[in-house]
Formats: sequence, structure tokens, C-alpha cells
Amino acid sequence: MIPNPIATVVPASGPDFPQDRWYVAGFSWELSGKPLARTLLGQPLVLFRTADGGVAALEDRCCHRALPLSLGTLESGGLRCGYHGLLFGADGRCLEIPGQAKVPGKALVKAFVLRERDHILWLWHGSDSHIVPDREPPAYPHHDSGQYCFGGDVYHYAAPWQLIHDNLLDLSHLGYVHLRTIGGNAHIHMNAQMHVSGDEQSVRVVRHMLDSEPPPTYCDAYPFKGRIDRWQEIEFQPSHLCIWTGAVDAGSEPIDTADRGGFHLRGFHGVTPETKETCHYFWTQATNPVAAPEENLRRVLEQTRLTFDEDKQVIEAQYRNLLRFGERSMVDIHVDAGANRARRIIAGLLASQA
Amino acid sequence: MIPNPIATVVPASGPDFPQDRWYVAGFSWELSGKPLARTLLGQPLVLFRTADGGVAALEDRCCHRALPLSLGTLESGGLRCGYHGLLFGADGRCLEIPGQAKVPGKALVKAFVLRERDHILWLWHGSDSHIVPDREPPAYPHHDSGQYCFGGDVYHYAAPWQLIHDNLLDLSHLGYVHLRTIGGNAHIHMNAQMHVSGDEQSVRVVRHMLDSEPPPTYCDAYPFKGRIDRWQEIEFQPSHLCIWTGAVDAGSEPIDTADRGGFHLRGFHGVTPETKETCHYFWTQATNPVAAPEENLRRVLEQTRLTFDEDKQVIEAQYRNLLRFGERSMVDIHVDAGANRARRIIAGLLASQA
Amino acid sequence: MIPNPIATVVPASGPDFPQDRWYVAGFSWELSGKPLARTLLGQPLVLFRTADGGVAALEDRCCHRALPLSLGTLESGGLRCGYHGLLFGADGRCLEIPGQAKVPGKALVKAFVLRERDHILWLWHGSDSHIVPDREPPAYPHHDSGQYCFGGDVYHYAAPWQLIHDNLLDLSHLGYVHLRTIGGNAHIHMNAQMHVSGDEQSVRVVRHMLDSEPPPTYCDAYPFKGRIDRWQEIEFQPSHLCIWTGAVDAGSEPIDTADRGGFHLRGFHGVTPETKETCHYFWTQATNPVAAPEENLRRVLEQTRLTFDEDKQVIEAQYRNLLRFGERSMVDIHVDAGANRARRIIAGLLASQA
Repeated sequence: MIPNPIATVVPASGPDFPQDRWYVAGFSWELSGKPLARTLLGQPLVLFRTADGGVAALEDRCCHRALPLSLGTLESGGLRCGYHGLLFGADGRCLEIPGQAKVPGKALVKAFVLRERDHILWLWHGSDSHIVPDREPPAYPHHDSGQYCFGGDVYHYAAPWQLIHDNLLDLSHLGYVHLRTIGGNAHIHMNAQMHVSGDEQSVRVVRHMLDSEPPPTYCDAYPFKGRIDRWQEIEFQPSHLCIWTGAVDAGSEPIDTADRGGFHLRGFHGVTPETKETCHYFWTQATNPVAAPEENLRRVLEQTRLTFDEDKQVIEAQYRNLLRFGERSMVDIHVDAGANRARRIIAGLLASQA
Repeated sequence: MIPNPIATVVPASGPDFPQDRWYVAGFSWELSGKPLARTLLGQPLVLFRTADGGVAALEDRCCHRALPLSLGTLESGGLRCGYHGLLFGADGRCLEIPGQAKVPGKALVKAFVLRERDHILWLWHGSDSHIVPDREPPAYPHHDSGQYCFGGDVYHYAAPWQLIHDNLLDLSHLGYVHLRTIGGNAHIHMNAQMHVSGDEQSVRVVRHMLDSEPPPTYCDAYPFKGRIDRWQEIEFQPSHLCIWTGAVDAGSEPIDTADRGGFHLRGFHGVTPETKETCHYFWTQATNPVAAPEENLRRVLEQTRLTFDEDKQVIEAQYRNLLRFGERSMVDIHVDAGANRARRIIAGLLASQA
Repeated sequence: MIPNPIATVVPASGPDFPQDRWYVAGFSWELSGKPLARTLLGQPLVLFRTADGGVAALEDRCCHRALPLSLGTLESGGLRCGYHGLLFGADGRCLEIPGQAKVPGKALVKAFVLRERDHILWLWHGSDSHIVPDREPPAYPHHDSGQYCFGGDVYHYAAPWQLIHDNLLDLSHLGYVHLRTIGGNAHIHMNAQMHVSGDEQSVRVVRHMLDSEPPPTYCDAYPFKGRIDRWQEIEFQPSHLCIWTGAVDAGSEPIDTADRGGFHLRGFHGVTPETKETCHYFWTQATNPVAAPEENLRRVLEQTRLTFDEDKQVIEAQYRNLLRFGERSMVDIHVDAGANRARRIIAGLLASQA
């Protein structure tokens, strides 16, 4: 077991991740005619779409001889194992054992609660006393609002989930890591006014960079006249972050109101532990191109991928180094305020359920 | 140490594999002018053919500085190490230390008993009190009988040997795993009459599938007129399985006698542990083509390889899943009778030598 | 922790490598405009050239969030981290935190003593009481004497450093491992007169092979008339070996004086542990071609690489086998005298600092 190397107060025992909440399990478009194997929160699962269009998640292990059910095939009745043909329904119950008249009651696999909302698949991660969810999964209206067009992808990280939180809550790294795309001038980034707020379950970081040079991705996507007034609004919750960034022509209008114009990038960032040492990163980027939406979205997504590839390289190298050097003190700097707050929230949640 | 995840009564200590018996080490055609490195039953060995045409097996470690002897070269006098040139005979004794007049008595490597019979290399795995074999290796006359032509191959498995026993003793999986080759109709397979018998050292499983559709491999190899009467006879011993399958035109003659006609496939399946977690699978397939024997054998072997590749994928995925989920109960179904009996035989042998 | 499988008296605790001495860290030509990541003696380091042409070595870990500094960029002021832009000087002190007025005193990374001499980079590996070196790094005048032309390379070994010492101190393996290049007749090698001498810090092995066949590399590089008188002089110190080999036409002049003529190969062999199980091998080969020096050097280096690739294959296979078989006794032979003496020196140094 590799301890989370940055967090300070992780209880040695107890659940590894905050419970009684929804985590992102994937995107709607990932469930086609084939079952999907994905380990989430330490649980190897098979996700699939049922004949009636619903979604289902089962433990990825046939109860007969333990073959991953994700190697099986989808039928109208359910998911059939690829070894001896046992058929399972969305509730995990075995419906048929080929060649055997009676299906014993113990022939079943564990089922999990999976919901689909706004193109996002959400998995309920409940404690023993909350196996059934007590609320709906979070809404994310921007995928379907008609105001934006969007696309996204799923990245696998050989690094713990909180290193991605750190990265997303401190966008000052843009000036050093992402010069080719969304970065822009490093000095401007590091000196931007930053306001950090939040409560026991969330963090909000707002940064304004007035009268700055537009970075390459922005220029490609929007007809800015010259310098820009730029905002970054990051909202962290343990299961996902929403990052609304954008810009208007410098001095043309205020940027601290929700109805501001200009170029918008709305990022959805679901970060779900695979194990304590690895995670999945589910992201979409929604934008409001003024013209040629398909071509503009394609370019924004291409540059987002470049950007997120750079982050992945940095974060995985950081994690390898954390493992290599072991637990050592770290020096905090001014930009860490938001990330540290998020770490305290996770640590508090883990402590409360220990 | 990874416990055998299916077996129930494996003693914690004691030898890992049944002793005082012959295991398959390879095939005759594998020993040409070069030494062959192969780990068998936890022992890293070098196998080679001596100048007089015999076969030999030594510990794969020079007694001087531990280089694998399998990196050396074969000479008329024996096997010469590729680092400093020490020469070893088939009995493991060092015959020459270049540049040194005297060869000390302690300069030797461990030698093992290797025999060649019917194109199969057999290694004696003796207990301390039976270092010397007390019987000949098993005969397998079908390689040389003139009645069949045969070919085969060696597969390495990242899975324990007993998972291959399970697979071979329950051919009902043909209908789900091997649809493209020898499978045929899944329903027929799962509902075939199965007769399981045996004694303390062997298991015999016989299944008849009357009036069934011939699978692709059968049609390619034999001029069946239409539907077929098909048999599967599996004989398990701890070191190897002999599987005699075949078919005649439906209703044309009885299939429960040894002199039945039609299409025959005689499979030899040597399964030898490499380690507790990995194994070697040595197989041959012998067949009786009515015409164009070379072309027919080539096709049968090609389809056998496809089939065994499918098995390997399933079994290795099964083992990874067994490791991932750890020890958990399994639900038995009707087709497991033969495999469970074989597991009880191995468990009994291990218990008796603990 | 994998014990050194050959050494006899390695103390269980205490430093892993002899302290208070210089080890080779690289070659001058490796430090260009980019930082170089290299783990030496268990320490992950970043090596770089400063704006004033000096050389520096820092711990490869930013004190802020642990990103490897080797992923950063070199500036005139120092090395800038590739995540949040902290700038570090050659002494490890943080000179700038972008966007933050004050740099706290604890913002620093560990600095190491690195020196450059005769194209070789030397790292001081001091004990707690000798953090500062008390002597200059070793001289190696043959790189710059004008008498030779030279080239070299850096190899990474998945094997402990002492296995390379063993290999270099016993050149009798040439006749078995390097037949294609510098080997020549195995019988001559194994029967060469060998004289081993030394003191508490060094070993000297001298071998003469009179009236022998010139090996391929020698013939390519020098116009020998026929048979040759050949010498091999190996000088071992814990951090590096100097191997002076060469030959004259058989009977033409004595070969036991330093001003002998003929063909010379002067090898520099820096062997520096990366970890206890792996090491770096820094080598140069200097030679005195009679004509076409560039073409001759190119050929000598090409054949040296072939030779050292063969050694690497043998040594890494040897180490894998040592791990596979665990600690077992070894049989010494006559050629081991020099290597065993070197092992006793290292063991003595480790014991004295335990």
C-alpha cells in the first residue's frame, strides 16, 4: 500500500475514498454493443447497456469459475459469460445455466447502482448503511443546453486522484506546462489575483487576468481584436470539478457576471480513483464558437488533448518521484491555497468515516 | 506465494507438485544443436542432446559464476559454459576447466533424469527417497503407429497448471469459446450426456453428441455427408491428458467401440508446472485424413492453434481475475464433475506427501 | 533488498557503497543545453551545466511539489522547474518563486559536489564527516595527451556494479565471450601467465600472451606482420579501472616497459552503482592508430561496443540467474584471483564504515 504522499491526515485504516456519494464511471457514448471493463474505487466492474436502453454495473467476475464477465457477450436477456455461457441480468442474478435445469439461488454476482444523466455515467459509492443512494446524481446541464457544443475523452492515470485535483485547482501551472496551447504569459499567470473560498464539501477558486495576451487556443477559436480580459473559475467537489474559463476583448465588458460574452470554455473533470495509486480522468470541454462550430470544436478538443497529455506527463512523473523519494516535507507557495483546501476536505471526509 | 485459487485442500507446506512421477519436459524435435532453457516444476533446467544422441537435463547454472549453461555451446564432450569455458558432461560433472590442470570434485552441477519416448521428453520428478525412477515413462503409441499423422507445439501459460486441467476436462466450453473452429452448437454441448468415472490416479469423461451439426474443423478435414454422431473421451492423469474425439456420419455405426471409423482427433496434452503460478502446455494433435494427409494435417493444426489460443486467452484472463479478487467461493455447475474429481486427485497426492 | 550474491562479507546495515571518494557521474559531452537525470549511488540527481560553463548536481526533486527538476529548463540564472516555475541555482538555493515576493529560506534542494576533469564528471560521495571533498578527483591524462584519440559511451546495467569488476579483472573470458572481436584463441587466454598484485585500495593484474594470433579488432587497427606479443594490464580502484592492452609484432621488442610501441588500447572504465541492483558503466577507449585515425577510431569503437554489448548480455543473464537461484556456494577457479581481491577490498571498505 502506497500512502498518499502529499496528504497529511489520512487514517491508516477505514475506507480509502469518501463514501455515500456519486462518482463518475464513464460517458454514455462508451456503452455500445459490448461490455466495458473498468475498475472504479477498487472494484473491478463490468458496465453495459441493457436491451431496454438502461445502464448496469456488475462485479466483473462470473460466480462459476471467475472469468471476467467483460469478456462475455450482450444478449437481449443480459450478459452471457464467455466460458460456460451463464447468463446474468442487470441485477446480477443468474438467469440461465446452459444444460442445467435449475439455477441455484447463490448463482449471482454483485450489482452496483449506475445512473446516466447528461451523458455522464454515475456510480453510487455507498457505505454499508447507504447502499441505496439517497439523492440523484449531480446535474451537468451544459452538455445539453444548446448553448455549447462539447466533446471529451477518458484518460487513465498512473497516479493517485488527488494529484489531479492539485493540478486543476492551481491553474498557475499553465504558464510553465502549457505554453503551446492555453498557457500564455507565465508572469501574468503567477501574478493573477486569486480568490479562494468554499465550504465543508467544496472549494471555489477565481482568478482574473486582465489586459493579457490571448494564448494560442483562444486565438484559434475566437476573433479577439487584441489583448483580452481573462477569467478562470474552478469549482471543486470531491467527485468532480467544473472549470469555467474564458475571455472578452480587454476592457469591453465586466467578466465577473454569469452572462458575460466572449469566448467560453466549460470543462467538466470527473476524477475517480481506480485504486489508491491510479485513477480515471473523465473530461469534457464545451465551447461556444461564433462560427464553424464543428471545425472550432475539433480544434479546441485537439488542443485540449495536447494540454491534458502534458498534464499527464507532469503528474505521472511527479508521482513516480514521490514514490522514489518517499515521504518528505514539501514547501508550500502562494498558489497552493485552493489545492490544500481540497486536500483538507478529503482528509476530513475520510477521518469522519474511519 | 499465490495459493491455487480453486483447489480447496492444498497443504501450506510440503512439495508443490505430486512427486515420484514423470512429467513432460518437451518434444524430441526441440533438441537440436543448441541447449534449451526451460524451468520445470520450479527448477531452472538446461535440456540438450548429447553427441551419442541421448538427452540430458542439468541445473541451468554454472557452478563457477552462475551463468546459465543454456547460454553455452554444445560440443562432442558435453556442454561448455559461455563465460569461462567450463565443460560439463550429461551427468553434471565438470570435465575441463580451461587453463587449470586439476578439476576439483565439487565442480559439478545437479543432473536430472530425462528420457525420450515416442517423440516426448519425460522428466522424472522424484522425492528424496525416489531420486531414481522406478518405472518407465508412459507410452504414447499414436505418434508412431502409422495410423495417424501428427504435429504439435509448446505453449507457455501465465496461469497455474490445474486451470488447464479444468479446461480440458470440461469440453462443454467449446460451444462458447471455440465457435469458429471445433465448437459447433452450444446447446448440444451443454446438454450432451456425460459419463464421469475414474480411480485414485485418473479420471475418465465420456460425452456423446448424437445427430449434431459438424463443426468447421471437422468439415474441413473429413467428407461427412451431413449430420454426425460425435464422441469425446478424455483421460486425465496428473501429468497429462489423452483426448480422443471424433465423429461418424449420423447413424452409420456405433461410436462406443475402439474400432469405430470416421474422423479421429487424438490429442496429447502434457501439462507441466513451470512454477506454482505458471505452466507449460505441450500438445500434439494426431489425425487420420482420408486424403491429402499433409494438407489436411496442416489445416487441423492451424485450427487447433486457433482453438488453443482462444483457451489461453480465457484461462489467463481467468487467472488474472482470480488473483484480482482473491479467494472467494465459487458456484459449481453440472459440467464440473470431471474437473473437480481431478482436483481432488491432485489434492490427495499433495496431502499424502506433505 | 537483494543481497550482493557473490560478496561474502557485506554488512547488513551501514552505507551501501564505499564512501569518501569520487565516483564517475558522466562525461563532459553529456551536459549540453538540457538537464540530465541520473541516479547515482542511490541518489536521484539532475546534472547540468551552468551559464558560466561549470557543472552542477542537485537532488532531482523540486522542494515545492516534488516534480523532477530534470524535466525543467536551463536558464542563465539556473534551473527552472517545469511545473510552477521555481528557479534554483547551482547550490540548490531557490532564487525565485514566480508571483511570490518572498522566497522562504527552506525553499532549497540538496546540492552535490560535481567536478569536471579530463572530460570526466566526478561526483563526491562523502560520509557525514566528509561532506566536502578532501582531495581532487583522479586525473586521466590519456584523454588529452595528444598521444591517443578516444571515444566512449555510457551503458546502463541491470546488474550490481561488482559483477562488472569481476568481468574486467578477469580477461580470460575474452576467449569465450568475445570471439568475434578482441577474443582470439581461448586456449591462449586461459593459459596466459597472470600476475596479481595490489594494496588495500587497488588491484593490479598483468597478463602476457606471447607469440599469439592477433584477434580481429587488432588486425583491423594495426598492420601486424603475423603473430603478436600481447599484454593486458588491469588496474582496479573501487571507482574505476584502467585497462592498458596492446601488442607488438612477436619478438620485436619487450612488452613489459611503459614505452613499448605497437598497437595500444587504453580503456577507462568507470563503474558507478545506480542502486544496489543496478549500475552505470562509463567507458572510453583510446587508441594510437598509425594512419587514418578517424576511420581507425571509428572501427575500434564500433568493435568495442560489440564487445561490451556481449559482456552486458552475459553479466545481466548472470545476475538474473543469481537472483533466480538465490545464495548458493560458488566454485573458484584460477582466473578469479584478481576479482576476488577486488571484492575483498570493497568488503573491507564497507566493513570499516559500517
